[in-house]
Amino acid sequence: MIKVSIIGSGNVAGHLVQAFAKSDSVELIQLFSRKKDAGITLPENISLVHDFAALEEADLYIIAVTDGVIAEISGELPFKNRLIAHTSGTMPLETIGDDNRKAVFYPLQTFSKNKAVDFREIPICIEAQFAADFQLLERTARAISDKTYAINSDQRKALHVAAVFANNFTNHLYQIADEICRENQMPFDILKPLIVETASKILQLSPSEAQTGPAKRNDSKTIAAHEAFLSDYKKDIYHILTESIQQHGKKL
Amino acid sequence: MIKVSIIGSGNVAGHLVQAFAKSDSVELIQLFSRKKDAGITLPENISLVHDFAALEEADLYIIAVTDGVIAEISGELPFKNRLIAHTSGTMPLETIGDDNRKAVFYPLQTFSKNKAVDFREIPICIEAQFAADFQLLERTARAISDKTYAINSDQRKALHVAAVFANNFTNHLYQIADEICRENQMPFDILKPLIVETASKILQLSPSEAQTGPAKRNDSKTIAAHEAFLSDYKKDIYHILTESIQQHGKKL
Repeated sequence: MIKVSIIGSGNVAGHLVQAFAKSDSVELIQLFSRKKDAGITLPENISLVHDFAALEEADLYIIAVTDGVIAEISGELPFKNRLIAHTSGTMPLETIGDDNRKAVFYPLQTFSKNKAVDFREIPICIEAQFAADFQLLERTARAISDKTYAINSDQRKALHVAAVFANNFTNHLYQIADEICRENQMPFDILKPLIVETASKILQLSPSEAQTGPAKRNDSKTIAAHEAFLSDYKKDIYHILTESIQQHGKKL
Repeated sequence: MIKVSIIGSGNVAGHLVQAFAKSDSVELIQLFSRKKDAGITLPENISLVHDFAALEEADLYIIAVTDGVIAEISGELPFKNRLIAHTSGTMPLETIGDDNRKAVFYPLQTFSKNKAVDFREIPICIEAQFAADFQLLERTARAISDKTYAINSDQRKALHVAAVFANNFTNHLYQIADEICRENQMPFDILKPLIVETASKILQLSPSEAQTGPAKRNDSKTIAAHEAFLSDYKKDIYHILTESIQQHGKKL
């Protein structure tokens, strides 16, 4: 059994606790939280601690906290030469202090407090200083997910930017579509099947193959009508994305 | 039984044929196609015709062709005072010629030739000149879909713009994310679970509630790092969408 302790009490920490609790090959031993009430439902055999000195020996400590405090927390750990991983998509491996063995255990997903996720479907990106540590991380990741990837710090930085496009920006386009619906007395519900189908299409087709619409087919009449209909930032966003689709079309 | 004939042989026509073939309350009687081989698999009792004069009397004719030829085809129909609907998201009701009763039967979905869709989940937006025709359209739509909406021509124009954001532009963001992955030797597969989760989240949360990421939390350090990482059109798109998310955040 791989002994794991988790440091943190946010969404990622909470989802990791739930995922490890179901595993046969990983034993979650402690959850560290500065707050007295971590707000996480802990399985029976896992103890909640509030003092770094109370952390028992484990094979792996996962620091699941916001980017800005990873370095500080790793510096406060009262032990040396143990394996410490952070869960950030943006921070380099070196964010972990030099006293311990550095690693990254980054689950690439958008976590909400009140929405369950199937952890087996979540890609886990791992990185470590040493080969033996990498293997332990890999076994730990496979205990909760079917999708593990070796991703170095440079790649992870790029991946995080890609995820901003695929997740944050996409969601913002949903928000603009929602606004257009409401401004014209239509429920956003009309668009939901289209949104779900658009996402599920790329499981079968590449985004390039799946591209449709007025920009893709250079339908300048429809594009002009849409731009005349829109104003302000919506018009600017429409324009820049239409141009980008057309430029991509030319490259093919 | 409502008697329906379909004019056209594209993706929408093909999917409509499959959907009506399963219905108990709609009888699909003829499919009109200019091409000798319509490329659509027709159920046994539906005849394929190539001459407008061969069109039998039906309660509803659905013209499922590209926007540019709807007016021409509706003008060529050799009968009067019958109910004719087009399936376009962008063309007004008036695109149908004055000889017949005008209507719109617009299924809001992205159709691909080789990907099956569950028509019961597809919103159908309907519009008609006369109340009795509207009721017949509604019964026809309900025969194949659980989601029917009364949408007038102005609303439909707005809805089509919203759909460009929710579908075409979203897919283009997937394409940019795919490029970033490939440029950094990572498979696009890593992002697929995130993309599917992002879409399915808005079934439970409004896009505004679901928004996360550096722009939403005004994380200027991460934003600056991402903009330094990106170049050209990717950087421009990152910038304009980040600004728009931040502006929306201020309004709340």
